[in-house]
Amino acid sequence: MKKLQEKILQEGQALNESVLKVDAFLNHQIDPVLMQQIGKEFATRFKDAGITKVLTLESSGIAPSVMTGLELGVPVIFGRKHQSLTLVDDLYTTSVYSFTKETSNDIAISKEYIQADDVVLIIDDFLANGQAALGLIDIVNQTGADLAGIGIVIEKGFQNGGKKLREKGYRVESLAIVESMQAGDITFRNGETQ
Amino acid sequence: MKKLQEKILQEGQALNESVLKVDAFLNHQIDPVLMQQIGKEFATRFKDAGITKVLTLESSGIAPSVMTGLELGVPVIFGRKHQSLTLVDDLYTTSVYSFTKETSNDIAISKEYIQADDVVLIIDDFLANGQAALGLIDIVNQTGADLAGIGIVIEKGFQNGGKKLREKGYRVESLAIVESMQAGDITFRNGETQ
Repeated sequence: MKKLQEKILQEGQALNESVLKVDAFLNHQIDPVLMQQIGKEFATRFKDAGITKVLTLESSGIAPSVMTGLELGVPVIFGRKHQSLTLVDDLYTTSVYSFTKETSNDIAISKEYIQADDVVLIIDDFLANGQAALGLIDIVNQTGADLAGIGIVIEKGFQNGGKKLREKGYRVESLAIVESMQAGDITFRNGETQ
Repeated sequence: MKKLQEKILQEGQALNESVLKVDAFLNHQIDPVLMQQIGKEFATRFKDAGITKVLTLESSGIAPSVMTGLELGVPVIFGRKHQSLTLVDDLYTTSVYSFTKETSNDIAISKEYIQADDVVLIIDDFLANGQAALGLIDIVNQTGADLAGIGIVIEKGFQNGGKKLREKGYRVESLAIVESMQAGDITFRNGETQ
């Protein structure tokens, strides 16, 4: 997605060979117009998949997911990383290790909101080693719903998450795939889903 | 806002006299169409205020804020409750006590994204005792920016946050004000901002 690539080049910062800072439009400050364009793009790519629910993780997955849900006309559910006192229902849970934060988080969704007859689109802001996506896939499997695919805003093509998911047969649609980074320099993968 | 009141009556659950569960459309599952209507409503109410930034808190404030930012044509910044490794910049921080979770959280925003010449609209999902709003106001004061007001999706009128903020002279626009609750029964305040 050309506009996203341009935004990454203009406002993203490669802090080193593995950390891409996009706090200017995705992870801290949010560009709502770009989020709307991202929502339209995911909706176009998955328009024939019969999606009934979008599933994401708090917090940075919420903005692109809500715009995608708006375009597809379906609700969005965000997995919580810490159990809230008002989440009193039966929960599906799984554990996700974050290499960035060097901690494991239990993520949870209420059993109320995804049923066996749903068709789920998973959306997340980043795909690196695939831990978060695999956690969300585990949750979808627990619900018995069908998984239509995984929509990723930015994939780090130099980490193995995308390869791992595609080899397992999942449909992964990444709007920008960063092939390599050095401090101050970002290169995208050509072809594929761009 | 009539549609929001109807949604609260249809899908909200008064668990007791103080806990309102709106996980069905705001705090866990999100209704993107309602969020868009909420965004349009906040944008209409604050259209003459010269807003340049929307400030909110992760996670449940993000969806209504992004829709408001889209309508107003301005960026959204969400305060983080846990410091991220990619938030390496200088930060404005403040401490917020959550009566629901019975813990204090430091919230932080990067100094990069709000400047002294900004006009900020604070948005949050709930207003109860006002702790979160006061924390966000403290952050806006640290930036030197002007505060246009505070947009709240659901105010608990039976707690003192709204009164406290209005007595201090802040403009508070709440889209639904719950006057009282009992298990299974929700009453709204009439007049005012509805």
